[in-house]
Amino acid sequence: MAQQKKMVEEITSMEEDFAKWYTDIVKKAELIEYTSVKGCMVIRPYGYAIWENIQRILDGMFKDTGHENVSMPMFIPESLLQKEKDHVQGFAPEVAWVTHGGSEKLEERLCVRPTSETLFCEHYANIVHSYRDLPKLYNQWVSVVRWEKTTRPFLRSREFLWQEGHTIHATAEEAVEETERMLNVYADFCEKCLAIPVVKGKKTESDKFAGAVSTYAIEALMHDGKALQAGTSHYFGDGFAKAFGIQYQSRENKLEYPHQTSWGMTTRLIGAIIMTHGDNNGLVLPPAVAPIQAVIIPVAQHKAGVLEKAGELEARLKASKIRVKLDGSDNSPGWKYSEYEMKGVPVRIEIGPRDIENNQCVLVTRHNREKTVVSLDELERAVGEKLKEVHDALYNSALENRERRTYACTSLDEITKTLEEKGDGFVKAMWCGDEECEDKVKEITGVGSRCIPFEQEQLSDTCICCGKKAKYMVYWGKAY
Amino acid sequence: MAQQKKMVEEITSMEEDFAKWYTDIVKKAELIEYTSVKGCMVIRPYGYAIWENIQRILDGMFKDTGHENVSMPMFIPESLLQKEKDHVQGFAPEVAWVTHGGSEKLEERLCVRPTSETLFCEHYANIVHSYRDLPKLYNQWVSVVRWEKTTRPFLRSREFLWQEGHTIHATAEEAVEETERMLNVYADFCEKCLAIPVVKGKKTESDKFAGAVSTYAIEALMHDGKALQAGTSHYFGDGFAKAFGIQYQSRENKLEYPHQTSWGMTTRLIGAIIMTHGDNNGLVLPPAVAPIQAVIIPVAQHKAGVLEKAGELEARLKASKIRVKLDGSDNSPGWKYSEYEMKGVPVRIEIGPRDIENNQCVLVTRHNREKTVVSLDELERAVGEKLKEVHDALYNSALENRERRTYACTSLDEITKTLEEKGDGFVKAMWCGDEECEDKVKEITGVGSRCIPFEQEQLSDTCICCGKKAKYMVYWGKAY
Repeated sequence: MAQQKKMVEEITSMEEDFAKWYTDIVKKAELIEYTSVKGCMVIRPYGYAIWENIQRILDGMFKDTGHENVSMPMFIPESLLQKEKDHVQGFAPEVAWVTHGGSEKLEERLCVRPTSETLFCEHYANIVHSYRDLPKLYNQWVSVVRWEKTTRPFLRSREFLWQEGHTIHATAEEAVEETERMLNVYADFCEKCLAIPVVKGKKTESDKFAGAVSTYAIEALMHDGKALQAGTSHYFGDGFAKAFGIQYQSRENKLEYPHQTSWGMTTRLIGAIIMTHGDNNGLVLPPAVAPIQAVIIPVAQHKAGVLEKAGELEARLKASKIRVKLDGSDNSPGWKYSEYEMKGVPVRIEIGPRDIENNQCVLVTRHNREKTVVSLDELERAVGEKLKEVHDALYNSALENRERRTYACTSLDEITKTLEEKGDGFVKAMWCGDEECEDKVKEITGVGSRCIPFEQEQLSDTCICCGKKAKYMVYWGKAY
Repeated sequence: MAQQKKMVEEITSMEEDFAKWYTDIVKKAELIEYTSVKGCMVIRPYGYAIWENIQRILDGMFKDTGHENVSMPMFIPESLLQKEKDHVQGFAPEVAWVTHGGSEKLEERLCVRPTSETLFCEHYANIVHSYRDLPKLYNQWVSVVRWEKTTRPFLRSREFLWQEGHTIHATAEEAVEETERMLNVYADFCEKCLAIPVVKGKKTESDKFAGAVSTYAIEALMHDGKALQAGTSHYFGDGFAKAFGIQYQSRENKLEYPHQTSWGMTTRLIGAIIMTHGDNNGLVLPPAVAPIQAVIIPVAQHKAGVLEKAGELEARLKASKIRVKLDGSDNSPGWKYSEYEMKGVPVRIEIGPRDIENNQCVLVTRHNREKTVVSLDELERAVGEKLKEVHDALYNSALENRERRTYACTSLDEITKTLEEKGDGFVKAMWCGDEECEDKVKEITGVGSRCIPFEQEQLSDTCICCGKKAKYMVYWGKAY
């Protein structure tokens, strides 16, 4: 009974304390558990199953676009990290250093990879010699370490899981194309699988990846009006190639420097799912990545035939490739309802003696608790359609939230007032391209540049800060 | 042309230099590339694709036996590693220590996990309270680090990829059962997917895992007569539970210590594949884990219709779930034959203008270069059957090698002479169970105990070393 009580206990409401609401869900939906190493967490089976679904789908998308998986070492010698000047400046302050192997002091310190550009470059230098060796389209699924001061589960942790794509191409054009292709893959994945609408754009100079010529990103807006960077894609030009001495013989027999990219998505996507779709009853999962897409709850399961029938439905749904679970445990139906609501299972299927008599069951969708009575003859089709409906509803509701919270402003004052009145959100405003103005906007209004969206609008002709000619419309916001 | 030359260059023959033959294959089949960090390697796409197949199949077997994947931190605080006395003694001398995060010295050193028992124990202590919480059947796919002095690709590296299963049970019986179950899963996997016959048995006291009550292992015999431990499964009793204060309330409302297991398999399986099936033309892959199961080589591909027909065959085989590749590059057929032999592709499909005229193609099996002409009408069935045949042939040939090289001996002298005459292999000999005798056998004959096989034979009544009453028949051998 102690255990039952724990589960039905309510979580903090998001209106009361958004940060607490978030960590309550993370713990009570059994996604993670803390450990004695600050910023490093246990991802529990239910949380990890979400990540496995993300991995499976993304990995398929990477392979469909011609990428191959590899595995690089987790250690980078200090001298290797230092080869590209901007890169080391960006990462050295936040890496974990290995100084001893067993009882012996190492001749050279090794850092635990914060990202693997330098390792890939060392490898390319060994294997890329001719235009025939290009392109190389690589990816790896690993964890990386960045020694963050403040940490939050999924959103900012010292160790996190991710995939990092690394590619090398004969020409700048091909590399730029790849950078954009993978940003589009990311955006598609977020919208079609996670039901999270994103803004695609370019990061400003001050905000790009250490060592990149340009960084592209997809930005999503959370329930609380804060922005979350969901994925990034970097174009490196030939800067790394020059720093690492990677050259290839061209078709014309000349020595040339190749051009590189990298791109990554991380377990923070799970944080994005929570803060985009979750509610005060717990997690709400988009069907494409839900470990359990439909849970069957027998009602009056002690009565003859109920559990058998429920088992039959489970077998039928499994056969039609729906991730289904029958909960035949001795907890009460009400307790089970709460548990699977907390865990965000998209569809609940209730079946009791009267339903069986009427050859029907009840489908209840998690996000709106809407009930639909369906004939058992139509079960597979009905559940399949429900899952599609849920995806669309989640996406539309997230899009609506973002649109309601996106404010076009033409003065710093208007930004401040709008945010005060309407709460946090995306601010669209014009910018001259000057870093000084970018800093000043943040200082005065509290919102930083999120990205220069590909879809530009001409809100006015002048920079919101200095009044000079505007170059771009920028999305500004507070960020996770 | 330079590139072509590189590929058809011959490798060292295994009779000339087995170690060199091994590393030649590892490099020339493009499985790995060395890095500037000793003992850490790049697993290249072709090598990683083998690992992905191993992962996919094993992961399915784990899930079928009720296990769930999780993700634990890669760091273990020194104080946590020290909680179980035997465990820390076994691992502390060979761990990599992180001492700094960014520019700051850490208050407590963290080691990079050499294995994760201590992390799982910390987690169990947080989540296991009642008999209702048991068992927990967990697994994770990660890399671990052990600071080895001498390293060899796949066989012994400082960082290696593996899976580590960790389970916790209410009773000792359940835990022992689990230990055995997973050893059987490993043995099945080796025999049915890798075509590697294994001996199942128990490790002697001196050879068991640090902190275990008992360690079970599967042992395989390589081409050169050396043994390779392919997987281990450990029963911990309640030792870890006591060291970490893990207790649960039983059904009878008493506080009890639970019982634990762990079990692991690593990328060294790829080394086992090379040394069990490889030959002087390169790698030979068992079909179940081969990244490419069949390669189509068009002959006279410039002639009208050849590439089109080859493409048709590729599409048909893909549709019937065979991992197939069509090589339509401008290299010569002979060059392609060598390349895919080096890469160990089980079946080669040759198709040229005359074949097309006769509605046929030629299947060539990698391991014996046997040619079979098959009608194109029968393509899918023929290739599918060929792959099964190849698996069986590889398994039988490995089994034959092992049997030929397994020697029953009844005196130390006989061991020495047999090994001198017939070369390395498994020695079966009786043992009293005394560690002193175990050491002495190794000292005098050069072979150490590999395992006490489950299938015991009574070769004689007395210990081969001291002449006292024998307790077990032991497999002895030189080991990787």
